[in-house]
Amino acid sequence: MNLTHPLLDHDGDKLHEECGVFGVIGATDASVICALGLHALQHRGQEAVGMTSFDGTEFYTRRGMGHVADNFASGESLAELPGDMAVGHVRYATTGGSGLRNVQPLYAELASGGFAVAHNGNISNAMALRRELVRKGAIFQSTSDTEVIIHLTATSRYPTILDKFVDALRMVEGAYSLICTTPEGMIACRDPLGIRPLVMGKIGGAIVFASETVALDVVGAEFLRPVAPGELISVDFDGNITSHHPFGTVPSRPCIFEHVYFSRPDSIFNKRSVYESRKQIGVQLAMESPVDADLVVAVPDSGVPAAIGYSQQSGIPFELGIIRSHYVGRTFIQPSDGVRHSSVKRKHNANRLLVEGKKIVLIDDSIVRGTTSLKIVQMMRDAGAKEVHFRVASPPTGYGCYYGVDTPERSKLLAGRMDVAAMAEFIQADSLAFVSIDGLYRAVGLEERNDSCPQYCDACFTGDYPTKLTDLMEREGNSPQLPLSAGTKVHG
Amino acid sequence: MNLTHPLLDHDGDKLHEECGVFGVIGATDASVICALGLHALQHRGQEAVGMTSFDGTEFYTRRGMGHVADNFASGESLAELPGDMAVGHVRYATTGGSGLRNVQPLYAELASGGFAVAHNGNISNAMALRRELVRKGAIFQSTSDTEVIIHLTATSRYPTILDKFVDALRMVEGAYSLICTTPEGMIACRDPLGIRPLVMGKIGGAIVFASETVALDVVGAEFLRPVAPGELISVDFDGNITSHHPFGTVPSRPCIFEHVYFSRPDSIFNKRSVYESRKQIGVQLAMESPVDADLVVAVPDSGVPAAIGYSQQSGIPFELGIIRSHYVGRTFIQPSDGVRHSSVKRKHNANRLLVEGKKIVLIDDSIVRGTTSLKIVQMMRDAGAKEVHFRVASPPTGYGCYYGVDTPERSKLLAGRMDVAAMAEFIQADSLAFVSIDGLYRAVGLEERNDSCPQYCDACFTGDYPTKLTDLMEREGNSPQLPLSAGTKVHG
Amino acid sequence: MNLTHPLLDHDGDKLHEECGVFGVIGATDASVICALGLHALQHRGQEAVGMTSFDGTEFYTRRGMGHVADNFASGESLAELPGDMAVGHVRYATTGGSGLRNVQPLYAELASGGFAVAHNGNISNAMALRRELVRKGAIFQSTSDTEVIIHLTATSRYPTILDKFVDALRMVEGAYSLICTTPEGMIACRDPLGIRPLVMGKIGGAIVFASETVALDVVGAEFLRPVAPGELISVDFDGNITSHHPFGTVPSRPCIFEHVYFSRPDSIFNKRSVYESRKQIGVQLAMESPVDADLVVAVPDSGVPAAIGYSQQSGIPFELGIIRSHYVGRTFIQPSDGVRHSSVKRKHNANRLLVEGKKIVLIDDSIVRGTTSLKIVQMMRDAGAKEVHFRVASPPTGYGCYYGVDTPERSKLLAGRMDVAAMAEFIQADSLAFVSIDGLYRAVGLEERNDSCPQYCDACFTGDYPTKLTDLMEREGNSPQLPLSAGTKVHG
Amino acid sequence: MNLTHPLLDHDGDKLHEECGVFGVIGATDASVICALGLHALQHRGQEAVGMTSFDGTEFYTRRGMGHVADNFASGESLAELPGDMAVGHVRYATTGGSGLRNVQPLYAELASGGFAVAHNGNISNAMALRRELVRKGAIFQSTSDTEVIIHLTATSRYPTILDKFVDALRMVEGAYSLICTTPEGMIACRDPLGIRPLVMGKIGGAIVFASETVALDVVGAEFLRPVAPGELISVDFDGNITSHHPFGTVPSRPCIFEHVYFSRPDSIFNKRSVYESRKQIGVQLAMESPVDADLVVAVPDSGVPAAIGYSQQSGIPFELGIIRSHYVGRTFIQPSDGVRHSSVKRKHNANRLLVEGKKIVLIDDSIVRGTTSLKIVQMMRDAGAKEVHFRVASPPTGYGCYYGVDTPERSKLLAGRMDVAAMAEFIQADSLAFVSIDGLYRAVGLEERNDSCPQYCDACFTGDYPTKLTDLMEREGNSPQLPLSAGTKVHG
Repeated sequence: MNLTHPLLDHDGDKLHEECGVFGVIGATDASVICALGLHALQHRGQEAVGMTSFDGTEFYTRRGMGHVADNFASGESLAELPGDMAVGHVRYATTGGSGLRNVQPLYAELASGGFAVAHNGNISNAMALRRELVRKGAIFQSTSDTEVIIHLTATSRYPTILDKFVDALRMVEGAYSLICTTPEGMIACRDPLGIRPLVMGKIGGAIVFASETVALDVVGAEFLRPVAPGELISVDFDGNITSHHPFGTVPSRPCIFEHVYFSRPDSIFNKRSVYESRKQIGVQLAMESPVDADLVVAVPDSGVPAAIGYSQQSGIPFELGIIRSHYVGRTFIQPSDGVRHSSVKRKHNANRLLVEGKKIVLIDDSIVRGTTSLKIVQMMRDAGAKEVHFRVASPPTGYGCYYGVDTPERSKLLAGRMDVAAMAEFIQADSLAFVSIDGLYRAVGLEERNDSCPQYCDACFTGDYPTKLTDLMEREGNSPQLPLSAGTKVHG
Repeated sequence: MNLTHPLLDHDGDKLHEECGVFGVIGATDASVICALGLHALQHRGQEAVGMTSFDGTEFYTRRGMGHVADNFASGESLAELPGDMAVGHVRYATTGGSGLRNVQPLYAELASGGFAVAHNGNISNAMALRRELVRKGAIFQSTSDTEVIIHLTATSRYPTILDKFVDALRMVEGAYSLICTTPEGMIACRDPLGIRPLVMGKIGGAIVFASETVALDVVGAEFLRPVAPGELISVDFDGNITSHHPFGTVPSRPCIFEHVYFSRPDSIFNKRSVYESRKQIGVQLAMESPVDADLVVAVPDSGVPAAIGYSQQSGIPFELGIIRSHYVGRTFIQPSDGVRHSSVKRKHNANRLLVEGKKIVLIDDSIVRGTTSLKIVQMMRDAGAKEVHFRVASPPTGYGCYYGVDTPERSKLLAGRMDVAAMAEFIQADSLAFVSIDGLYRAVGLEERNDSCPQYCDACFTGDYPTKLTDLMEREGNSPQLPLSAGTKVHG
Repeated sequence: MNLTHPLLDHDGDKLHEECGVFGVIGATDASVICALGLHALQHRGQEAVGMTSFDGTEFYTRRGMGHVADNFASGESLAELPGDMAVGHVRYATTGGSGLRNVQPLYAELASGGFAVAHNGNISNAMALRRELVRKGAIFQSTSDTEVIIHLTATSRYPTILDKFVDALRMVEGAYSLICTTPEGMIACRDPLGIRPLVMGKIGGAIVFASETVALDVVGAEFLRPVAPGELISVDFDGNITSHHPFGTVPSRPCIFEHVYFSRPDSIFNKRSVYESRKQIGVQLAMESPVDADLVVAVPDSGVPAAIGYSQQSGIPFELGIIRSHYVGRTFIQPSDGVRHSSVKRKHNANRLLVEGKKIVLIDDSIVRGTTSLKIVQMMRDAGAKEVHFRVASPPTGYGCYYGVDTPERSKLLAGRMDVAAMAEFIQADSLAFVSIDGLYRAVGLEERNDSCPQYCDACFTGDYPTKLTDLMEREGNSPQLPLSAGTKVHG
Repeated sequence: MNLTHPLLDHDGDKLHEECGVFGVIGATDASVICALGLHALQHRGQEAVGMTSFDGTEFYTRRGMGHVADNFASGESLAELPGDMAVGHVRYATTGGSGLRNVQPLYAELASGGFAVAHNGNISNAMALRRELVRKGAIFQSTSDTEVIIHLTATSRYPTILDKFVDALRMVEGAYSLICTTPEGMIACRDPLGIRPLVMGKIGGAIVFASETVALDVVGAEFLRPVAPGELISVDFDGNITSHHPFGTVPSRPCIFEHVYFSRPDSIFNKRSVYESRKQIGVQLAMESPVDADLVVAVPDSGVPAAIGYSQQSGIPFELGIIRSHYVGRTFIQPSDGVRHSSVKRKHNANRLLVEGKKIVLIDDSIVRGTTSLKIVQMMRDAGAKEVHFRVASPPTGYGCYYGVDTPERSKLLAGRMDVAAMAEFIQADSLAFVSIDGLYRAVGLEERNDSCPQYCDACFTGDYPTKLTDLMEREGNSPQLPLSAGTKVHG
C-alpha cells in the first residue's frame, strides 16, 4: 500500500501480504466486531492497525503500531469508536516515525461529509496521479497510494459520493479491494480483475465485509458470497444492499498466492478450501517429484497441509521433525561466539531423536531468498538426518509483485538468480523440486493454466502482469525487472 | 513458586508449569546465552522473567513482567548484565503491583557475598519455615517460598556457602530444581525425588543448566546428562565440576506430566523423547479406545503428537480440522450481542469444509475444567461434524499439584467432580476416553505403573503425593482435597 | 489558533496566550537553537510543542504533547530534526485524542515543495474560508485555522511561493504572526495591525525570529528589530534578507496585554521594557488609588513588578507576604473532609508571621473570573491580615479576545458581570481598584489613549475590536457578546 | 540517606537537602492528605517519592521516581493507599536502575507486624552496623542506611515494638528525624541533637507530623509544636499521644542551614520565621559589607528575602534584575557553536534594560562550587552592568555535611579551596562578601555563636561536627576532610 517502496527489502524470508480489511454496518458495537475480525486477519499484516467508526453523526478514528490485540482489545479503546458502522485495516510495513500517518483507514472530510477508506492492494499509477493532484493544489497527508483515491474522489465533478468514487476509480490502475464508509453507509469494491480477495457475510441484521472468510467465522458471521471482480456493493443504514458493475466485465485474475500462502487454511478463497488446495499441491508434488524417504517433515506451520498431502499420496509417514516455538517476536541479540543459526532455532528446532539417521522429505510453501531454507536444511543435517529432500509447494518465485505484496527485487529472489539445480546446491539439499505451474493449477481444481487467458494472477511465478505498471515503467525506463516477453508462458 | 496461592484459580483451561530456569557459567556474553535459553523455555512461564549475572566483582539483576523477548532481546538490556556467569528464570503468575518483588532470580547479599537463586518447584513447608524465621528477626522481601531457602542459607551456622546451602535444603520439603550463583561459581541441584526437571550441557568451555534440553539446542549447547535427583553440582570459574549427593538415595519420582504436556516435544525428559512419548500415548489410546471415524483431528498444538500416533495406529487419516491462530495474546472485549465462543474461535477455528459431514476423533492432551473442551466440541458440531469422539492423551486429572504447578482446586477439576460418563455428557461428546494410567506408563517406555513404588510422580492423576505437605495440612486441617487413601492405586 | 473553540472555558483564572513561535535559518544545529528558543517561550503555551527542520533536501517534523523539555531536550530527539533551518511552536490548548494533528508547525508538500507554518494569532474568518475550500475539494488534516492559510497558498494561481503566500494572506482577516519555511528559505510576517508580537535577531550568521526578545537572549542572539506590522521578511540560504510590505500601511494596534501579562518581564515589546511598563502601572496605581497600609504584597510572580512600583511610589515596604511553590503541575485529588482552598495553597501560601495583624496592599496583574482573587484574599485574612486592599495592574477585563488569546465568555468575566464595587464585595476585599485605561497608556509611555485611533489593541478592556469578526458574526447573529457601540471609548 | 555516597558529586551548584517526611494518623483519606503534605515538601527532595498507608489490617506501599504530582496526584493512585494512617517521603538522589529499592518509606514485616519507616537525616555509623548485621544472617533489600534501623529493630530482644525501636536507636549515631507506622499507630522521633527538623500539627481529630510547618499550612493543619530533640512521640488510633525522652538531655544543635536555604521562607523553624531570618541576614550583610550601588538584585528565588533586607537596610532600591523561568526541568542539549551559558540563561535571564549601565549589589544565599556564581556575574556584565558586587547570605561553605545533606567533597567547595579574595577573583565580581558567623547567629535572633556550646549545627561553615562520624573515619583513616581542630571557632 505504500507508494514509496513496493520493493522494500525485508528481513523475513517470506512474501508478505501487505494488508487485511474488515468492515461491518448495522451492528451494535460495530467496533468490537471489527476488532475481532481484524484480529482474525492479523496474519495479513502485523505492523499496524487502524479503525474508523461512525455513530450517525461523527466519525472516530484510532490507529496504532503493532497488533490488533495491542491496540483494540480493551473496552476503553473501543469505547472511543462508538456507532454501528466500523471499518478497519491491518497492514504490514510502515517505516519511520511518521508511520502513523500512513496507517489506514485514511479519513477525510469531503464536502459531502466524512469519508474513510481501507485498502488492500496497490495502485500501480499512484505516483503519476499524485503528481498531477499536487500540481492542482491538493495537499497530501500521507505517502500512501490510498490517499490518491480520496483526493480523486474529493475533486470529482460528479454530484453524489458514489459517482465521485467511481469516477476516481476509473483513473486508477492496479489491484484494490476497498471498504469505505460515508455518512450514507458502506461501500465495498474490488478491482476489475479481482486480484485481491474480498468477501461478504452477515451477522444478524448486519452486513460484514472481510479479506477472508476466516474473519467471518471468528465473528460468528455467515459467509454470503465473494464480492465479484469489478463489483461495487453499497449498503445503507436501512440494510439495503445495492450491487454496481461500473467497469464492464473482463476475465478475472485473482491472486493464486492466496492459495499458496497468504490466506489462512481455514478460509475459502475463490470458492475453494485453501486447506484442500494446499493438500492437493502436496499430492501433485508427490506425483511429480517422488522420493524414497522415511519421513515427511513440514516446515511449520505453512508447510503442514502440503506435507499431509504428500504423505497421504506417497505413503511415507508425516511426523513433526521440526518443532515451532509459539514465542518468536522480535530479533534477539546474538552471542559474540556465534551460536550457529540461533535466530532460526528460536523459531524452528529439530526434533533430534526423531530425525537422527533418517531420510526426510522436507516440505515448505515457497522459497524467496533461500537463506532460511539453507539454514533449515543444515539444522536437519546437524540433527543427524541422512538425506534431506526439499519439496516446495509453489513454483519458483522469480518476479516481483506490484499488487500489494511485499517482494524483494528480482535480483534477490533465489529463483530470479539461478535455476533449480543451482538452487538445490545453494540450499545444500540432496534434491530439490517445485510443483509445476500446471500442477499448481490442477491443485486448485483446474485442468491446467490457460496460457492465453490465465485464470489467476501468477505474475510472481511467470512475470505475466495483468495490468499496466505505469509508475514502475516511469521509474525504471527499460524495466530490467520485467521478463523480455511478459505474458509468454513460463513454467517453473 | 508463590507461597500465597498454590491453588490460584486461573482463566486458561490448562495446567501451567510455573517456572523454567537456565544458567550458564564460563561464557563470554553469559547473559546473551541465558536470554536465548530462557526464550526457549518461555512455554514454562510467560508472566515474568528475570536474570542475574556476575562479572567477577558485582552481581547485576534485571527483572520484568512479560516475555523474555520484551525484556531481554536487546543489546542495551543485556549490556546491563555483564559477566561470564548468568542465571535466569521465567515464571507463570505473579499478581498485583508488587509482583516484581517476587520475580526471580531472588538475590541477597550474604556475609559470604552475593547469592542469587532461581527456583522451579514448590516448597511444601515454606509457610512454617517462614514463620519461624520472622520470629527470629528475618525480614522478607517477597512472598516467594524461594526466599525461605535464602534466609535459611544466610542464618546457617556452617562455614562455607555450599555447606550453608545444603544445611538449608535439609530443612525444606517439596519439589525444587535450583540454580544458584555465588562469587565462587554456580550450584545446580534437584530435590531428592527429582520431581522437577533439570539438565546439564556444555557449549565450548562453558557449562549450562536448563529445565529442558530444548534450551540447550537453541543456544547450541551439547546435552551432557540430567542432573540426578538429590544431586548438587557445583561449577567454579576454572571449569571444575563437582557432584555432591548430600541427601542419601531414594527412588526418584519425576513428574510424568512433563511427558504429557509441560515439556516441549523436542525435549528429552528422563532420557526419553517427549515427542515419542506423546505419539505412543496416541497409540495406546487407539488400542484402548478405538472408534470408527473419518478423520483424526488434534486440538493444536499440544494434541498433535498423540493425534499422529492415534492416526498411525488406527489408519484413520490425520487432518488439520482445527486451525490455530498465531496471534492470541490478551483477552478481547466481546460484542454485546454475543458471538458464540468467540474467545475460543480467536485461538482455534474449525476447518469447516474439511469437517462437514465427517465423523471425527478429537485428540487433546488433557481435560482440566472441561469448559474449553465443551466449546471445541460445539465448534466441531457447528462446523457440521457428524460425530465427535473425544480422546484424551492423559488419565483424568483429579487432584491438585503442590510441586510448582498451578492447578485449580479439586472441586473445579472436571475429573474431581464426575466420572467419565458424566464428563462425556458435560462436554457433549459422542464418546469420551482417557488413556489409562498403565497405558500412560507403557507410553513412556515402562511395563506398567509400579504401585508399591511408582516410577513417576503422578499425584495429579492418582492423589499419591510423594512428600509431606506441611503447609497444606496446617491450612486445611482434615484436608478435604486429599483422597482418603493417598497412595492406593487409582486408575483413571 | 483552534478553529473550534475560541471561547473555550478553562480552569485557570488567567488569560492565556495561545502560542509562541520561533525560527532560525543559517545555523548548524538549527533545531537545537530552536528548542532553546521555544523553551524560553514556554510561558506562551504549555500544552504542546512541535518543530520542523529542513536540511536542504528533506523536511522533518516532530510534535508532542507537553513541554519543550519533555519533547526536545535530548540529542536523540533533535537528531531527527537535522538541517540549518528550523521553525517551532508552543501552544496552549489542544483537546481530544486527535490533538496531535493540530500541533504546529503544520506541514504540507505543495507543488513548489515543502511548506511549514507556525502561527501565533487567530484568523477571524477561518470557518468561512474553510467551508469554501472544502467545497472545491480541499482535504483538511486538522481543525486549525492555520491550515486555511496553507490551502489558500496551495491553490493560489500566482507563480512563486512568496506570491502565493501573499495572495493567501490577502483573503485572511484577524491576527497573525507567522514563521514559514520553504525550500528557498524562511518567511516571517505579521498582520497589518501587528496585533501579535514578532521580533528578529541574529546569532553569528544566522537569522532568528521569535515571539519575544527573551528567546533571543536565551539562545545568545542579538535583537535586531521587531518585524513591522504588515511586514513580510524573507531570508534565503545565502543570508539575503528582503522586506516586503504587501498590504499597504495602517496605524498599528499591538496587543497591550503583552505589557500587562503575556510577555516575560525581561522582554522588550513595542520598543519598551515590559518590566518597566509593569512597574509604571504600579506607580500609576499608587497615584490613582493610594491606601494607608503596612506592607505591599504581590500575588507572585506576575504581580511583583507592579508591586515594586507601587512600593517605590507609595513608600510602603514591599515584602513577600505570599510564597509561591515551584512545584505546581497537575491538579491533586482533594481530601474528602475539605481542606479549605488547598488547590490555591499548593501554589500560593501565606507568609503567616509576616502578614499577621498587618494592613496589606495586595497587587495582582488582572482579574478574570475572580474566583482565585477571592481565595487569595481569604488566605490573607486566615493568616491574620487586618485589612486587605486589592489593587489590579490592568483595567477591568470585560470583553473576549478573538485574536489568539483564550478568554472565557463575557458572562464569566467578573468585569463583564458587575461593576467595581460589586467586584470588591465578591472578592471580599476591604477595597478594590484597577488602573485606569489612561493610566495604563501612561505606564507604557504614552500621554493617554487616542480614542479616535487607539495606539494599542485593548479590546479585552474596551470591546473596541480593530478587525472584522466574520466567523463570530455568523455564529452569533446579533452578537450578544459585543458592546452595543464597539469602538466607543470605555474607561475601566 | 544513601549509605553509598554521602559525598556524591552532583550537577547543581546548591547544597541539597536529601529528604522530607510527612505522616498523618486518624484521618479519613490519610493518603490524600499525605500527598498534599509531601507536595508542600517537594523542595526537600525531587527525585523520588513514596508512601505507605495502613487500613487497620494491611499496609500498602507505593513508590515512584519523580515528583509527588507525577505519582500521587490522582484518585486512582491514592485509592491503592487506603486507610486512616499514612506516612510519606520525598528524597533527593537515587541512582541506578535499582533505585526504587531505596525509595522510602522502607517497609518490613516484623514478627510484631508491619513496620514502615520514613527517614530524614543520615546515620553516620550505618556501614559499621550493617556489616555486623549481615554477619549474623540479615538480608538487606536496599543500600539505605534506614534499613539498618529496621534490622536493629527486628532483631532486638526487647518485647514491645516501641522498646525494640528505642533499643535500635541507641546503637545509631548521626542525624535522624523519623516517622514510623506500626499496627498500633505512629511513632515520630528526632535525634538527641535535633539536627534535622520535625514538627507536629493537628487537623480535626488527626495528628500530623512533617519536616516543615509549610506542609501543615497546605493541608490545613494547625501547628502544635516542634518535636523536641531526642523526643519520641507515639500516637495510637484512639488519638492518645505519648511523649518519650529515652536518650537523656543534651543541648540541641539544629541545622542552621535550614534558616539559610533548606526550609521554605513561609516555614517556622526553631520557633522563628525563616523569611524573617533571611531578611535579617540581608540586614546584617548591609551593615557588615555596605557598597555604593544603584540596585539590589537577588539571584531568584532563594536570594530574594536577603535582598529585600539588604535594600531596606541600605536604602538602595530592590529590583528584578534577573528573571527566573518557571520551566526549567531537565538539561537541554547545547548547540555545537556554543551559546554562552545557555544552561544558566534557561533558568535565569538578565533584565537587560534595567541593569544596563548600573552598579548592582547581587545577593545569593550561598556559594558552593562557584561555577554558577561566575556565570551569573558574567551574565550581569554581558547585560551591561557597570559594577557587580556579590553579597552572600551565608558564611563560606567549607566543609561537607554528613547529616543528610548532599555536599560536594571539600576539594570541590570553593570555600574549601580558597580565601574570600581568591573567590572574588574566581567569580569575577568587583567585590565579594559573606555574612559573618556571628552575623548569621544574630540574624536568627541570638547574640552571637556560643563557641563552647554552639546553639546550632554549623559544621558546613565551621567543621565543628556535633557527633562521631564512624563510617567516615573508617573510610578515610587520617580524615583529610576534617579540620585539624574541629570544634575551634572559625569565623567565615
